[in-house]
Amino acid sequence: MLHECNMWVLGGDLRQARLAELLAEDGHRVYAYGLERAVHATEDLSVREDLEGIGRADCVIFPLPAADASGMLHCPLSSQRVQMTHILQKLSPSQAILGGRVDNATAGAAAELGLTMEDYLSREELAVANAVPTAEGAIQIAMEEMPITIHGARVLILGFGRVGRALAPRLQALGARVTVAARRYEAMAWAESMGLGAERLDDLGAWLWGCDLVVNTIPALVLGERELTLIRQDCLILDLASKPGGVDYPAAERLGRRVVWALSLPGKTAPASAGAAIRDTVYHMLEERGL
Amino acid sequence: MLHECNMWVLGGDLRQARLAELLAEDGHRVYAYGLERAVHATEDLSVREDLEGIGRADCVIFPLPAADASGMLHCPLSSQRVQMTHILQKLSPSQAILGGRVDNATAGAAAELGLTMEDYLSREELAVANAVPTAEGAIQIAMEEMPITIHGARVLILGFGRVGRALAPRLQALGARVTVAARRYEAMAWAESMGLGAERLDDLGAWLWGCDLVVNTIPALVLGERELTLIRQDCLILDLASKPGGVDYPAAERLGRRVVWALSLPGKTAPASAGAAIRDTVYHMLEERGL
Amino acid sequence: MLHECNMWVLGGDLRQARLAELLAEDGHRVYAYGLERAVHATEDLSVREDLEGIGRADCVIFPLPAADASGMLHCPLSSQRVQMTHILQKLSPSQAILGGRVDNATAGAAAELGLTMEDYLSREELAVANAVPTAEGAIQIAMEEMPITIHGARVLILGFGRVGRALAPRLQALGARVTVAARRYEAMAWAESMGLGAERLDDLGAWLWGCDLVVNTIPALVLGERELTLIRQDCLILDLASKPGGVDYPAAERLGRRVVWALSLPGKTAPASAGAAIRDTVYHMLEERGL
Amino acid sequence: MLHECNMWVLGGDLRQARLAELLAEDGHRVYAYGLERAVHATEDLSVREDLEGIGRADCVIFPLPAADASGMLHCPLSSQRVQMTHILQKLSPSQAILGGRVDNATAGAAAELGLTMEDYLSREELAVANAVPTAEGAIQIAMEEMPITIHGARVLILGFGRVGRALAPRLQALGARVTVAARRYEAMAWAESMGLGAERLDDLGAWLWGCDLVVNTIPALVLGERELTLIRQDCLILDLASKPGGVDYPAAERLGRRVVWALSLPGKTAPASAGAAIRDTVYHMLEERGL
Repeated sequence: MLHECNMWVLGGDLRQARLAELLAEDGHRVYAYGLERAVHATEDLSVREDLEGIGRADCVIFPLPAADASGMLHCPLSSQRVQMTHILQKLSPSQAILGGRVDNATAGAAAELGLTMEDYLSREELAVANAVPTAEGAIQIAMEEMPITIHGARVLILGFGRVGRALAPRLQALGARVTVAARRYEAMAWAESMGLGAERLDDLGAWLWGCDLVVNTIPALVLGERELTLIRQDCLILDLASKPGGVDYPAAERLGRRVVWALSLPGKTAPASAGAAIRDTVYHMLEERGL
Repeated sequence: MLHECNMWVLGGDLRQARLAELLAEDGHRVYAYGLERAVHATEDLSVREDLEGIGRADCVIFPLPAADASGMLHCPLSSQRVQMTHILQKLSPSQAILGGRVDNATAGAAAELGLTMEDYLSREELAVANAVPTAEGAIQIAMEEMPITIHGARVLILGFGRVGRALAPRLQALGARVTVAARRYEAMAWAESMGLGAERLDDLGAWLWGCDLVVNTIPALVLGERELTLIRQDCLILDLASKPGGVDYPAAERLGRRVVWALSLPGKTAPASAGAAIRDTVYHMLEERGL
Repeated sequence: MLHECNMWVLGGDLRQARLAELLAEDGHRVYAYGLERAVHATEDLSVREDLEGIGRADCVIFPLPAADASGMLHCPLSSQRVQMTHILQKLSPSQAILGGRVDNATAGAAAELGLTMEDYLSREELAVANAVPTAEGAIQIAMEEMPITIHGARVLILGFGRVGRALAPRLQALGARVTVAARRYEAMAWAESMGLGAERLDDLGAWLWGCDLVVNTIPALVLGERELTLIRQDCLILDLASKPGGVDYPAAERLGRRVVWALSLPGKTAPASAGAAIRDTVYHMLEERGL
Repeated sequence: MLHECNMWVLGGDLRQARLAELLAEDGHRVYAYGLERAVHATEDLSVREDLEGIGRADCVIFPLPAADASGMLHCPLSSQRVQMTHILQKLSPSQAILGGRVDNATAGAAAELGLTMEDYLSREELAVANAVPTAEGAIQIAMEEMPITIHGARVLILGFGRVGRALAPRLQALGARVTVAARRYEAMAWAESMGLGAERLDDLGAWLWGCDLVVNTIPALVLGERELTLIRQDCLILDLASKPGGVDYPAAERLGRRVVWALSLPGKTAPASAGAAIRDTVYHMLEERGL
C-alpha cells in the first residue's frame, strides 16, 4: 500500500486534471500547476500559479505529452507558458519524476541535470488499459458514421494487438460479424478461440468486398490502392494507426472511399477514465520505487 | 416464398428510402413516390412524381408516420405536398395497404373508402427488431456525453421490456456494471438470469446515488423530484420513453441534472437497418395475406 | 422486508434441504421434517422426527413434488413415511401453506380441510430462475456426450421460451454457432436481436443436416421420423421437453440416432442453486401475503 | 494452398484417429498405422498393419506423445507394439517428420539417423487452440462437481496465460463473478479490460475465503498450506497445472479440501476438436516447408 505522498501534477488536458483530483481523493497532498481552467481547489488539492515548494514533492507528474514542440510544458488548460528546463531545474534526483510520451529533448535536458524522467506511457499495463477507451471511441465513431447498426454489420479488423483484442469482442457482443486479419498463426488462433473469424493479412482480397466496416490497428501501410479498390464505396474505413497511418490517403480520396483517421481516442472520448488509468500506473511505478 | 409484386412506396424518411431500395433488390417492381431526394432510379425501381398506376399495385406502403398533423402524406425527402385522402381515393380494397403509426384520422378516412390500412409498427416483431437500433443509439449518446468509458460505469436501467432487454446485455458486454429496476418479480428474475443486478423499481433510493448513467425505458413518470435529488450531478440521465417521457423535466432543470431525452432513435441512428426491419415485417404481413 | 418467521420445511430432495438451511441462515426459526439424512441441526434449524408444533408455524413448505403417487409426503432423504392428509389435518387456514407441483389429489384434500396450498412452481419468476440450471445442465450433458467442443459446434435450438432464451446465449458465448427455430415471428426477432440465427420451425429440413447438436425445448412432438432422418448420425439430440417429450423415440432408436432425454435438470445438476431460487420465490409469496 | 500429399498417421489416441480422417477428407492420401481400433478405411484412407511404403510419404505424423517411456510408439488404440527406432530407420531426411511432445530419447534417435522430428505441440497456435477444449473441460468438471450453478458462483482463476484467458470470459459469460489473480500488472490490466476482477497473486488471503471455485493454471506451487487453510471446505479447487501441479496435495488432504487435478483435458473431453487443431497446425508446418 502506498503511503500518503506530496505530489505535483503539471499541465496537460482533462486526463491530467482528473488525475490530480483522483490522487487527492485517495488522500495524497496534491498541487496542480498549469491546470487552473479545469481543476478546483479542495482540502487536499491546491491549485498553484507558481512552482514554489515543488522541490519538496515526493513525486512530480508531467503530462501526456510532457512538452510541446518548442520545449514548453504542454498545458492547454492554462494560461501559463513555462519552459520544461525551468521546471526541471527545481527538481532533484531523489524525487520520482514521471511523464507521458517523453520526447528526446526533454529526456536529454533531464539527464543533463542528473534527473531521470520515467515514461508512464511506455508501461504495458497503461497501453492495455488505454485499449479500452480506444475501442469504445472506435465504436462511437462507427455508430455515428454508419447508417446501419453495428448489429449485423460485417466488420474486418486489421491487426490483433491490444486494440484489436479490446475492440473485436466488443463489436461481436454488439452483434457484428467480426473477422480478424493477422500475420501470425498465433494471433489467428487467438481470434478463433474467441469465436471470431480469422484470415491471413496477406490474403484479404475476397474479404474486403463484403465489409461494412474495416478497422485498421496496424501502424503500417496495409490499405494501399489495391486494397482500397476492393472495398465497397459505402464501407466505412476507420484507421486507428498512429502516424503515418495505415491507409494510402491520396488513393482513398481519388477512389472516393470514406476514411476516418482517429488518433488519441482515450484522451478525447473518455478523459476521466484515461486519467484513472494513469493514476493506477503511477501507483505501480511508485510502488516499484518502494514509496 | 413471396412472389414478385408490384409495390408502391410512398413518402417518409431514409428508412422508407432504404425500404424501396431493398424491395427492388429482392426483385419486386417498385415505384417510389415522395422520395425523390433520397432514391435513385434503377431497373427495378422507378422514381415517380405522380400517382399514375398506383391502382395496379399489389401493395402500397405508407411511411412512418403515415401522415402529418394536417392530413398530408409525411414526405420530408420530397417537394411533394399531397393529401392522404387524395392518395387513398386511388386505392381499392383488394390491395395490401400498409402504414406506420397510422393516426385515427387517416384510419377513419381509409375506412370511409372501404379500405383497411394495416399498421406495421403495431407488429411485435418490428417492435423487437427496433429495440436493437434504439439500444445502439442509447449507447452512442452515452459514449458521446460521458467523460468516462462505458467499461466500468455503473448503470441503472429502469424497465425491462424490449428496449431494456436489448440494451442491458450490450452495456454489460461493454464492461458496465448494470442493474435493472423493474416492477415485477418475473422481470427481475430475467435480469438475474442474464447476470445483471435486479432491484425493485419502488425501492430505488440507495441505488440512484452510485450511478454514472441512468436509462429510463418506462413510459411513466418514474424519475420525479425525489429520485432526481438522489442522483449525482455528474450522472447522465437518458430518457428513452416516448412522450410525455419518464422524467420530471422542470425539476431536473431546477436541480441541474443532465438529462438527454432521445426519441425515435432507430430512424435517426440507423435508418438503413430500420428500413430493413420494416421490409421483413412487410413480408410477414404479405405472407399472412397469402401473397 | 420479511419479519422473522416460524417455518416448517417438509420432505423433498437436496433442494428442500438447502432451502431449510438458507431460511435458517436468514434468521428464521426453521424446523426440518423428513430431511434427516441431508440436514444438520444448527441454532436456528431444528431437525424434527415428528410434527409437534407445526400448528404454530407461520409458514409450512411442502417439497417439489409435494406428494408421491400414493398420497405420501415425497421425502426421499428420510426414513419417514407419512400421509399428506395426516400433515394437512394439523394445519389451519391462517398459515401460509406452500408446495411445489401440487397434484389434484393433494389440492383437493387441502380444500376439504379449508386450506389452500399455493404452488410455488407455478410462479413465473421461479420458472425463469430454473431456466438457468436447466441451461447449465444441458451444456454439461452436451460437453460430456460430444467428442467436439461447444466452441465451433453448430447448434439448433427448437423453441425460444424460457429455457431457449437461457441456453442460446450461453452456447453462443461458448463459441457455438446457434440457430433458433421458432413458430412466431416475434420469437425469431428476439433471437436475431441477440445475434442468433433464426428459422421457421416448420421449415427445418435443410438446417437439420448440418447440426452437431439439436436441443429441443418444445413440449410437443417436433422431431418425428422425417426430421430424425434428416439429422446426421453423429449429431447429439438433447430433449429437454417434459413428458411425453419432443422426439419420436421408437423412430430414433430404429434410425440409430443419439438422443438424451434430460428431465428435471435443476434438482439434479444444481440443487443448492435451485433451493435458493425456491427460497426467493417463497419470500415473494409471503411478502404478497403481508408477512 | 497445400498440394495433395501422401501422409502417414501413426499411433495415438482419438485425436490422432480424427486427424487421419480429416486429412483424408481434405483430399490427401492417408495411411493410418497403429489406429486400427478407431479408424475405418475409406477411399482416401488406408488402415495399415505394416509400414510398407512409409518411405514414399511426404509427411509422417507421430502421435502425442510420440513415444511411451520404453521407447515404443504410443498406440493405445492398436494391438501393435513397435519400437520408435524401427520406424525412424525407414524414414529419410527429405520427409516432413512431425510429432507431439517429442521426448529427448526419440529426438536423439532421430538425430542419429540424420532426421529432424518437429514438435507440433511446441507451436504457439496449437497451444492457443488447445486452451479452448481445456477451458471447456474445466467448465464441465465444475458443473459436474458443484451443487450450485456456474451462474452466480464466485470464481478465482490463478494465472492469466492461455488457459486463463480462454476460461475466464467463458465462466463470466455463464454468469460467474470471476476474479483473476496474476503476478504482473499487465496481466491484471488485461483481466480488467475484459470486465474481470484482478488481484495480485501474492496478496490472495481475503479473496480465497469467498470463493466457490478456485482454478489454478500456474505450473508452480501457488496453493500451499496457508492458502488452503483460507479456502472454504465447500469450495472446489480445480488444478489444471501440469505435473507437479499447483496444489500442496498432502496438505489439501489433511485439511479436507476438495481438489480435482485435471490433466490433458483436450484429448479427453474433445478429441475430435483437438485432432482438428493438430491438423491446422500440421498444415502451417507443411506450408512453411513449402509443401
